[in-house]
Amino acid sequence: MSQTDCNLYFDWAATSPADPEILRESLEISLLNYANPSSAHKVGLQARTVLENAREFCAKSLGVKKNQIFFTSGGTESDHLPLLSVLNKSTKGRVILSGIEHPALREECAKLKMLGFDVVSVNPDKNGFVSPDAVAEKLTGDTLFVTVMAVNNETGCVQPIYKIADKITELTQGKRRPHFHVDCVQAAGKVPLNLSHPGIDSAALSAHKICGPRGIGILYASKEFRSFLVGGGQEQNIRSGTENLFGAVAFSKVLEKYYLRDDSNLERFEEQKNWTKEFLGKIKGLKGCSIVPEIRANLEDDSVQEKFSPWVVQAAFHGIPGNVMVRALDAKGISISTGSACSTKKQERPVLAAMNASRDVQDTAVRFSFGPLTTHDGMNALFEALQDVVSTFN
Amino acid sequence: MSQTDCNLYFDWAATSPADPEILRESLEISLLNYANPSSAHKVGLQARTVLENAREFCAKSLGVKKNQIFFTSGGTESDHLPLLSVLNKSTKGRVILSGIEHPALREECAKLKMLGFDVVSVNPDKNGFVSPDAVAEKLTGDTLFVTVMAVNNETGCVQPIYKIADKITELTQGKRRPHFHVDCVQAAGKVPLNLSHPGIDSAALSAHKICGPRGIGILYASKEFRSFLVGGGQEQNIRSGTENLFGAVAFSKVLEKYYLRDDSNLERFEEQKNWTKEFLGKIKGLKGCSIVPEIRANLEDDSVQEKFSPWVVQAAFHGIPGNVMVRALDAKGISISTGSACSTKKQERPVLAAMNASRDVQDTAVRFSFGPLTTHDGMNALFEALQDVVSTFN
Repeated sequence: MSQTDCNLYFDWAATSPADPEILRESLEISLLNYANPSSAHKVGLQARTVLENAREFCAKSLGVKKNQIFFTSGGTESDHLPLLSVLNKSTKGRVILSGIEHPALREECAKLKMLGFDVVSVNPDKNGFVSPDAVAEKLTGDTLFVTVMAVNNETGCVQPIYKIADKITELTQGKRRPHFHVDCVQAAGKVPLNLSHPGIDSAALSAHKICGPRGIGILYASKEFRSFLVGGGQEQNIRSGTENLFGAVAFSKVLEKYYLRDDSNLERFEEQKNWTKEFLGKIKGLKGCSIVPEIRANLEDDSVQEKFSPWVVQAAFHGIPGNVMVRALDAKGISISTGSACSTKKQERPVLAAMNASRDVQDTAVRFSFGPLTTHDGMNALFEALQDVVSTFN
Repeated sequence: MSQTDCNLYFDWAATSPADPEILRESLEISLLNYANPSSAHKVGLQARTVLENAREFCAKSLGVKKNQIFFTSGGTESDHLPLLSVLNKSTKGRVILSGIEHPALREECAKLKMLGFDVVSVNPDKNGFVSPDAVAEKLTGDTLFVTVMAVNNETGCVQPIYKIADKITELTQGKRRPHFHVDCVQAAGKVPLNLSHPGIDSAALSAHKICGPRGIGILYASKEFRSFLVGGGQEQNIRSGTENLFGAVAFSKVLEKYYLRDDSNLERFEEQKNWTKEFLGKIKGLKGCSIVPEIRANLEDDSVQEKFSPWVVQAAFHGIPGNVMVRALDAKGISISTGSACSTKKQERPVLAAMNASRDVQDTAVRFSFGPLTTHDGMNALFEALQDVVSTFN
């Protein structure tokens, strides 16, 4: 299967096929501007200029200021940097995370707990949504950090991050405000985002989820903070390590092409909404199929549909274990996954467990995820293959 | 100045111009094998196979086992991962670092000190060498971690890492042995290395210092350890984050081409030794010039010359501040630096300070660094330009 032949690839939430033109062009730019952007000589300054232009383009696409963009090595690091900054505090306070966070935050929070921080998890409702009130309930005067992701990687649930930010602001008027971090790895380029919403202190983005290269991420931070991971002092001391010019340039280009805001790149998004609605309508008629969460099966209710990313669909097929479904479709040349690629080996479904999904649903749920190169024909082929597998097992 | 026109670039220790063929070829391989190597489907397994082949090639070049190679985002992260693993310990013991470490270790050790670890620095001698005995003096029963770099990035001093490893082993017979980490960022591909020497528990390597891309590093670890930086669990839980296939493939290829062992890739190294000796002989005759450390000026003593990387020369020019020299040469199209690119802005020379170099030497020392594309003609042009600048200032 070649890069351009990804019509039957439905695992875009794990990673996206990269945009070949953008990567090739960015590589040539990095080869030409080969010096270390932190060097003082002319060729260093030339590389610095290219890097800073890339930063400016990223800021423009994201609708934020240039000095709020920090290049990192990816989503995981963009999550770790603000989280671990709590280690710089003189006291160990509370850290609040939602029960559906990516392992980059979930596992790292467990490390903080081990070090003595009061780590508290906020459960989502049975539909997978984390409410502002549920976050508010856990807020204490010594809360240092709160993190809730923007779009869940397994269910596609769009979380009410702006309302959560507002709630935190409201409840901490005149008091010490905790840092509010949003993992936007599955949201950037997938649903319209407004990172400059007041009260969002930082956000993590990863290039490879939206057709960019691996090994480059962005940490948006509304203002500078003290990093715990330090070294050469690059990226305003927020992220040390020689700057990845190729990655930064490529990220700036994929953001321009794919990043969604209320006023940009919405055509393909609207199209995908229709296709996904059609797909949901067809699969929910398959024997034993239940959409996860069930509320998403209310296709006529636009207010429900708007709460989900159209690029991710989770569904359970009663009687067909998730890994069996993955293999059955794989045999037909179709790529899907059970949950996140990060948990492939573990066979655990912590997100579904947090939603109180039944053991049966946890065992049989699979994820279909789509991207810019997904076609209507491809989605039809996926449905037919699913129909085939379901009839074989029933 | 284009990538291929780096004849007057003498800042290879900051970063090297990348090998264009290797990077282009690696990019095409990564575009073809676009899936997430941790995904369970066929295209995922295909990407996994390419990644594991790259790991095997790296291991072969380095002379270590495949399961001892962990891909990271670069040298800084390869230093942080083993260092921060001390945070998993139930007690806070001693951490020993040499006084000439890269900021990735020096600054991160300062963070550990802030958290209550007993962080102790071992000074080098006036020539910039860290002796096994000096390390031994600081060893205590509660020492958790010792780190000494293999080649210093500012002076080119080759540190006695094997003897230090042996000394630690000898002194901790039958006791708890601390982890011994070696930053090899300026050593890999520059001097022959033997990472599998007993007692070296981990080593950090960075691709971009030897013509590979930015954003990819290797952590060699003789055996697995518990990482403090966690997430999706990639790289055997040592380094989380979606695997950078492009970087891994490119790193495997540059290691094959450039990595030095006692039995591989030595021709260019021997050539550079001669050229550097000739260069040292010429510049030491320039008015006000002193080689740093002075002992390196003993050109007839092979046992002295062998203690230095031929790719890095530090020299001070009395009366000419380092940054003035950098600018004067830059005006002639020649790129050099004062110290590390990481400290460009700080104007500090912690390595020279640790060596007890005089204030005058600290202010006037500059670094010339060379690489595979450096030519004899280029080095002659560098000497002539230096001669010119020195005569202008005297």
